[in-house]
Amino acid sequence: MNAVGVDVGGTKIAAGVVTSAGKILASTTYPSAGPREDLLSSIARAIMEVADGHEVGWVCVAAPGFVLSAENRVVFSPNLHTIEGVPLKEELERRVGLGVTVENDASAAAWGEFRFGAGSEVDHLVFVTLGTGIGGGVISHGALMRGAQGAGGELGHFTIDSKRPLCVCGNRGCLEALASGTAIARRAREVAGERPDSALGTLAAQRKVLGEDVTELARGGDEAALSVLEGAGAWLGIGLAGFVNVFNPEVVAVGGAVSGAGDLILSAARREVRLRARSPSRDLAEIKAATLGAKSGILGAAALARDDAGQYVLGN
Amino acid sequence: MNAVGVDVGGTKIAAGVVTSAGKILASTTYPSAGPREDLLSSIARAIMEVADGHEVGWVCVAAPGFVLSAENRVVFSPNLHTIEGVPLKEELERRVGLGVTVENDASAAAWGEFRFGAGSEVDHLVFVTLGTGIGGGVISHGALMRGAQGAGGELGHFTIDSKRPLCVCGNRGCLEALASGTAIARRAREVAGERPDSALGTLAAQRKVLGEDVTELARGGDEAALSVLEGAGAWLGIGLAGFVNVFNPEVVAVGGAVSGAGDLILSAARREVRLRARSPSRDLAEIKAATLGAKSGILGAAALARDDAGQYVLGN
Repeated sequence: MNAVGVDVGGTKIAAGVVTSAGKILASTTYPSAGPREDLLSSIARAIMEVADGHEVGWVCVAAPGFVLSAENRVVFSPNLHTIEGVPLKEELERRVGLGVTVENDASAAAWGEFRFGAGSEVDHLVFVTLGTGIGGGVISHGALMRGAQGAGGELGHFTIDSKRPLCVCGNRGCLEALASGTAIARRAREVAGERPDSALGTLAAQRKVLGEDVTELARGGDEAALSVLEGAGAWLGIGLAGFVNVFNPEVVAVGGAVSGAGDLILSAARREVRLRARSPSRDLAEIKAATLGAKSGILGAAALARDDAGQYVLGN
Repeated sequence: MNAVGVDVGGTKIAAGVVTSAGKILASTTYPSAGPREDLLSSIARAIMEVADGHEVGWVCVAAPGFVLSAENRVVFSPNLHTIEGVPLKEELERRVGLGVTVENDASAAAWGEFRFGAGSEVDHLVFVTLGTGIGGGVISHGALMRGAQGAGGELGHFTIDSKRPLCVCGNRGCLEALASGTAIARRAREVAGERPDSALGTLAAQRKVLGEDVTELARGGDEAALSVLEGAGAWLGIGLAGFVNVFNPEVVAVGGAVSGAGDLILSAARREVRLRARSPSRDLAEIKAATLGAKSGILGAAALARDDAGQYVLGN
C-alpha cells in the first residue's frame, strides 16, 4: 500500500506519495510560513494533492523540533513555532480523511536512509544530519530508537569538549557547536581574519561568508577553506567515535546540507574515528555520506507511516 | 524455570541459581586466576554446585571485556586474558549438560537492574558502572541494545573533553579517564599535593591513596576529598547529560564500586545534567544509584539466559 510522507521544515512543506519499495509517485511543495491556520491547510492540501489518483493507506508528518511521537504532537520547534502544540493528527485526519502520525524530522530521515538509502542493507545505523544544527536518528536492531518520550537521538547535543563554545541549547561544547554549518561559517570568518590573502580571506573582505561558500572555496583548492572543513570534520569524528563505541553500528551515514562537502569533511572524521573508537566497533563501522539527500524525510516518513501501521517485520 | 547466572571477574567467579522472580536460591564463588583449564573447570564447578538440587533451565555467563554475544565468545578481555578466544559455550555445555550463553558483564548487570533493580519499573534505562573503569549498558524500548557485534554500550569511551588525559583505550578525554575510580585516585593524589594539611594530604604522606580512601575521607567531612568526588561527579554528569539527550531514558542508574560514594558524587552529576541536558529528556530522567550492588551480574545473567530462551515478553 502507498503512503504519504510529509516533511515540514522552517520554510517549506514537501509531500510525496511513496510506494512500499520507496518509489515517489508524485510530490509537491508548499510554503510553511504564515499563521497556524495557513500551515495546517497547506499541509492538508499538499497531502490531498499528492494522494489524488493514488491508493493511499497512511500519512506520516515529519516535523522539526521535539515531537511527542506517542501523542503525535510537536511540543517545541524553534524554527517553526506555529506548529507547536497543534493537535496535528486530529486536525489533519479531519481534513484529509486518512490516518495520520507525527514524527521528528531527523528520525524520519534516519528511517528513510535505513529503509531505502545508506543503511538499507544493515540493521544498525547511526544517521547524523549536518545542517544549521546537528540532528540525527539511531536504528538499533532494526528499530528506531525513540526513547521514552520520543525525544531520543539528539546526537548534536553531546558534549565533546566541555570548555568550548556555548551551544544554542545552553550547553557548552556540544558537537553541534563545533561541527554544524553554523560552526563552520563562524570558524571560516575567524580563519579569514587570520589568512586575509586566502580566497576565503578575500571573500570575507567583500561579504559575510556562509557555510556553502566554504565548501565551494575548498573544492577550488583554497587551503584556508580546506582547513576549516578539516577542522569541522575532526570535531565530527570525535562525536562519531563516541557513537561508534556506544551503538556499535554497521553504518554511520552523514546527511544534511553540509554533507555536500563529502570527503572534504568526512576524511577527517574517519581519521578521528580510527584514532578514537575502540575495536571491533571501529573496524566495523563504515562512515559514509547519506544517499537520499533532501528526499530522506518524505521517504522515511512514508515508510514510518506504513511500518508503524504494522506492515514492517524486522529482518525483512 | 530457574536459571544460573555466572559473573566472571578478574579475580573471582560468582555464580547463583535464580528464580524467574529474581530470588537467589543458592550462590558460590571461586577464584578466576590461574591457567585456562582451571578457569573453565572452576566455572563449571560453580555452575554444578549452585544448580545441585534445583531445577535449572539455562545458564548465562557474564564475562568481562568484549563479548561477541552472537558467537558466545570473549574476544578481548584486558583483565582476564585466559578467557579470550575460548569456545565458552561449547566447553561449558559439555561439562555441565545445560544450555549456556555468554554476555558482556556490564550488559548483564544492566539487564539485572532493568529486570529487578533500579530500572524495574521502566522501559528505558541507562546503566553506568563506575569502577576501575567505566562500563555500561542501555535498555531501549525494553530491549538490550547490543549493537551489531554485541560491542555496543561502551559508555565509558565517549570523548567529553577532547584535549584531556589519555585513556587506557588510547583515546583522549574519555568519560572513563575523568570519572572512574582510577581517575578519582589519580586526582586525589594531585589534590593531596596541593592541600597537604587536609586529611587527604595527611594520608597521602603515609601511603598511596586509593579510590575508596577518598570516599571514606569525604564521608568524614574532609574538604579536599569532597572536592575530588565533586569534580568526578561533574565529569560524570557531563557524560550522563549526553546519554540523557541521546537515549531519552526514564532512569539513569549508577552502579559499581565507586557508586558507593552515593550523593557525594551523584549530586554534582545531577547538577551538570540539569545544566547541560535538554528538555524534556532532562526533566524525565531520574539519576539514581543502582540497587542490586554486586548481585546485578548474577541476577542479570540469569535473567538474560531465561529471556533469550524466549521467556521474556516485552512489556510484561
